[in-house]
Amino acid sequence: MENHVEMSMLMGFYGTLLTEKQQDILSMYYDENLSLAEISEITNTSRQAIHDIIRRCHKQLLEYEEKLKLKENSIRNTEAKHSLLNSIRELKENISDSACREKIEAIEQEILKLL
Amino acid sequence: MENHVEMSMLMGFYGTLLTEKQQDILSMYYDENLSLAEISEITNTSRQAIHDIIRRCHKQLLEYEEKLKLKENSIRNTEAKHSLLNSIRELKENISDSACREKIEAIEQEILKLL
Repeated sequence: MENHVEMSMLMGFYGTLLTEKQQDILSMYYDENLSLAEISEITNTSRQAIHDIIRRCHKQLLEYEEKLKLKENSIRNTEAKHSLLNSIRELKENISDSACREKIEAIEQEILKLL
Repeated sequence: MENHVEMSMLMGFYGTLLTEKQQDILSMYYDENLSLAEISEITNTSRQAIHDIIRRCHKQLLEYEEKLKLKENSIRNTEAKHSLLNSIRELKENISDSACREKIEAIEQEILKLL
């Protein structure tokens, strides 16, 4: 149907806004790559109903991303933090004083916690 | 009705998930502190309808926060970034080499951009 990795990511951001049943079905489809027929059997629901749920939720997840942009912001933020981490590591290479190096390592840890 | 500042913040995070009319009414109520009677007059809608919209959206915004925790995460993240900024500034005080100080200032700018 669609890019499964992309939808898996959107599930990570917005999954809690769906019902538990919807989350289960989308997880089987996008995370575990089960077929509609397999999901239909496991959930004892018609293949057509599974298809409709996936299509509706897929649209819903894209709408949430369009409005809240959590994925887009998260990607941008992660890139910015990686760049920050590189800058800090470059700085460390230029510093020999051991007390300062320790401070820099503590800062590195703070950044890693942000990631 | 409630903590207006808190609801104003939640509007900032989740406002786009409401309709335009709901956003307008909540903004008048929570951001501009207009009364129900004033909003009723401006929007040409009954006072009771305004009351119901605010009550329903208020509940909805709290539910979004319970599920997505954007406000909670944002507060935690902002605190972490401020702490990081303090650490970098402390480090700068201990470094006299001008090339290294320049690098640190560039890092400071990177952190400020994250805020």
